[in-house]
Amino acid sequence: MAKNLTSREEDYSKWYNELVVKADLAENSAVRGCMVIKPYGYAIWEKMQAELDRMFKETGHQNAYFPLFIPKSFLSKEADHVEGFAKECAVVTHYRLKNDENGGGVVVDPDAKLEEELIVRPTSETIIWDTYRKWVQSYRDLPILVNQWANVVRWEMRTRLFLRTAEFLWQEGHTAHETKEEAVKEAEQMMNVYADFAENFMGVPVIKGTKTDSERFAGALETYCIEALMQDGKALQAGTSHFLGQNFAKAFDVKFATRQGKQEHVWATSWGVSTRLMGALIMTHSDDNGLVLPPKLAPIQVVIVPIYKGQEQLDAISQRVEPFIKEMRAKGISVKFDDRDTQKPGWKFNEYELKGVPLRLAIGMRDMENNTFEVARRDTLTKESVSMDGIVDRLEELLNQMQENIYQKALDYRDAHITEVDTFEEFKTLLETKGGFLSAHWDGTEETEAKIKELTKASIRCIALDAKEENGSCIYSGKPSKRRVLFAKAY
Amino acid sequence: MAKNLTSREEDYSKWYNELVVKADLAENSAVRGCMVIKPYGYAIWEKMQAELDRMFKETGHQNAYFPLFIPKSFLSKEADHVEGFAKECAVVTHYRLKNDENGGGVVVDPDAKLEEELIVRPTSETIIWDTYRKWVQSYRDLPILVNQWANVVRWEMRTRLFLRTAEFLWQEGHTAHETKEEAVKEAEQMMNVYADFAENFMGVPVIKGTKTDSERFAGALETYCIEALMQDGKALQAGTSHFLGQNFAKAFDVKFATRQGKQEHVWATSWGVSTRLMGALIMTHSDDNGLVLPPKLAPIQVVIVPIYKGQEQLDAISQRVEPFIKEMRAKGISVKFDDRDTQKPGWKFNEYELKGVPLRLAIGMRDMENNTFEVARRDTLTKESVSMDGIVDRLEELLNQMQENIYQKALDYRDAHITEVDTFEEFKTLLETKGGFLSAHWDGTEETEAKIKELTKASIRCIALDAKEENGSCIYSGKPSKRRVLFAKAY
Ligand SMILES: [Zn+2]
Ligand SMILES: [Zn+2]
Repeated sequence: MAKNLTSREEDYSKWYNELVVKADLAENSAVRGCMVIKPYGYAIWEKMQAELDRMFKETGHQNAYFPLFIPKSFLSKEADHVEGFAKECAVVTHYRLKNDENGGGVVVDPDAKLEEELIVRPTSETIIWDTYRKWVQSYRDLPILVNQWANVVRWEMRTRLFLRTAEFLWQEGHTAHETKEEAVKEAEQMMNVYADFAENFMGVPVIKGTKTDSERFAGALETYCIEALMQDGKALQAGTSHFLGQNFAKAFDVKFATRQGKQEHVWATSWGVSTRLMGALIMTHSDDNGLVLPPKLAPIQVVIVPIYKGQEQLDAISQRVEPFIKEMRAKGISVKFDDRDTQKPGWKFNEYELKGVPLRLAIGMRDMENNTFEVARRDTLTKESVSMDGIVDRLEELLNQMQENIYQKALDYRDAHITEVDTFEEFKTLLETKGGFLSAHWDGTEETEAKIKELTKASIRCIALDAKEENGSCIYSGKPSKRRVLFAKAY
Repeated sequence: MAKNLTSREEDYSKWYNELVVKADLAENSAVRGCMVIKPYGYAIWEKMQAELDRMFKETGHQNAYFPLFIPKSFLSKEADHVEGFAKECAVVTHYRLKNDENGGGVVVDPDAKLEEELIVRPTSETIIWDTYRKWVQSYRDLPILVNQWANVVRWEMRTRLFLRTAEFLWQEGHTAHETKEEAVKEAEQMMNVYADFAENFMGVPVIKGTKTDSERFAGALETYCIEALMQDGKALQAGTSHFLGQNFAKAFDVKFATRQGKQEHVWATSWGVSTRLMGALIMTHSDDNGLVLPPKLAPIQVVIVPIYKGQEQLDAISQRVEPFIKEMRAKGISVKFDDRDTQKPGWKFNEYELKGVPLRLAIGMRDMENNTFEVARRDTLTKESVSMDGIVDRLEELLNQMQENIYQKALDYRDAHITEVDTFEEFKTLLETKGGFLSAHWDGTEETEAKIKELTKASIRCIALDAKEENGSCIYSGKPSKRRVLFAKAY
């Protein structure tokens, strides 16, 4: 398999697009903006799902399922929300097709017009809060800690596989609480769950912070986020968790009898991550040879490629590797023995490199004699000859090291690309030369934020939770500022 | 919790509707025909999904994801398919809303009309075969063994929770093969996987068979099905597996280079089960006290209810049960200790009965003294006092017995409700008095099948795979017949 992959330096964007397709992760479909997630890509997503689902349940959440469709009028009930989401969406207006009387094939039946149009959910706050009204009477019914795995649709004009698609897969948590404090704590907790997942499972270092007013979720009082940095110096928002105050409870009239017997509106949060994480994963670790996967997310962690001539040699190798395969499986290592005779070893090496399989073991006649495997690491592209004695323990160690190494590499890059800047000239120069996060003072106004974005395409990614108080002056307006915020160009 | 459940005898249909809501499984939403699957119901569905997914993967299948939307023109490409599915469906015609200039709130933007309407998938053969064209060049690319977990929409006019809803959740397998034989084998294999799952996991006995021409899936050459029998004597189709021949390959021009270097169309299957299985599960086992769940599907297998006065007694009980809870969890038994002080034990007993928790353990002061638990079985509604010594092994045994017992009970009922009939008078009488499957001779024509359905509301559920050859005459037309088929009224 010839890779023919554009290099990152040549054209980062093209490299990404090619990689997604060539590594069999996803492809465009016949429906504009909608992707097909191919089996290999979906297997990675399933691993993400399984781990996130485990983390959600460990923090007391349950899954449920709410309708795909939202009555149009629901979107208008929360004023900010409709501004944010009603604009670009898929609208169902009819519920039947019929055969054209003039032989024009199948056409929409004009008699089957819906009284009220239905919107394909861009996010489910409205339909869920309409449901919660029925679930909540008293403080005894709280908290509600529910998550949904679902598809959502936002009619994006410019789409890119995983990063921005009209339809995407995600999870959306929607919780209801007795007090403001509890809801804020929940929103913070889920941001921490996301950060933990991104760093320790995906190997993607993130900065935790809050969004500015203008970048906040439509309908939220506070949006917590985790921000990652891609290898081209652009930031990517990897997950958000919103404190929604009582906005949706008020819009959908969800009240509860308090412990004191009063009627009060319920406090809400919502939080989500999506198949966009696949984009973050790919762009954080991969190289010019293809995908690099952290072992915890690799559908195949170890591939064994036999190098042989004729059935007899293959049989001998197969027999020799069998106990090692069993031992690996018993340890929970996912292993594939690729004995296809339709492809040459070199082709297979290329393919597994492209697909980011962490460890590749080759075994030929000489290895058989020497009692060794040739072990190749995908992250460092190094090879070594390893004795068969105790090799499974060694592979396990290597996988752990690789998980750590991949994270550390991304962290070093990220940390080297957070730069404090104090003048707007420096800001503009660094943005174009070095990229990354620019830590700068900002006067706190939407006007300045918008102006900077207009002039540089950089937005405020977040106000980092660990930003220290520090007097300074806004890089653009010169007005006083109490702390630095993180700017970057972003996906 | 007062159950106030209508009895099955009084009104089976009402009993079902009430049970689904009162056991917290699902409820209707604000969107006509679309349900909300509540956390408890969804937890059961997740258990079904996990087991089915395991079985699919064990038989070599991988998951993938295809678009929610299907271009209208795709539906017309396979002639039978469009007849079957184009009629009642959700049609997306616009991609934007806007604020009404006359202050009428949010309205559909007439400028954002799609050139070609999109249909919310009622099933995905068309969009998937449009994709497979790109995936298949040679026999080396075959077979494709792919499954998708997804939501689909069919605009049903009369809906019932789980049994018939506009939107439902399902899995759809779509496979592509080199030969007809291999495709037929796959379709049969998946019918067997479904039957195995229904019987050994859900405890629902099923009859395997094939559909008649008129009941076949739109676009299939053969539809294999599993048919279950509900307690009201009506049949329910629990899963289908279709041999699609080359119909979709021809419609979407999917060819491959054979081993002999010729170009041929690919052979196809598709197969699916849906949240309808929840309906089958509920209606097969449950009773007038509520849900009865086979242990393998129960989100909570054992509940422990403490009977106490004051914190001191509760503390003593909590301490005593703790090691048993640990032991159960270590054995993979899901257990809940309900120490809520907001509800009385009697209320809790009722609630867990309604929710079908297989085993309920009660423990009060006297049990503490006697070193016993009171163990109540949900399936038989029997109670016994069980010594704490070795109780976890005993509970494990009981759960296995219950799984078996629940299946056996359903099987006995089903077997007692398959009746051979030889005259149309007897057919009509039995259908109204005893119900169940009527095994009768049929002349093999669509006309007779339609006439019988019109006169009695009974349809041919399937031609059982194990039906023996037997000469007879059609109960309706008197014409010759080679084997009996199974008629029933059906959901
Ligand atoms: Zn750099
Ligand atoms: Zn009976």
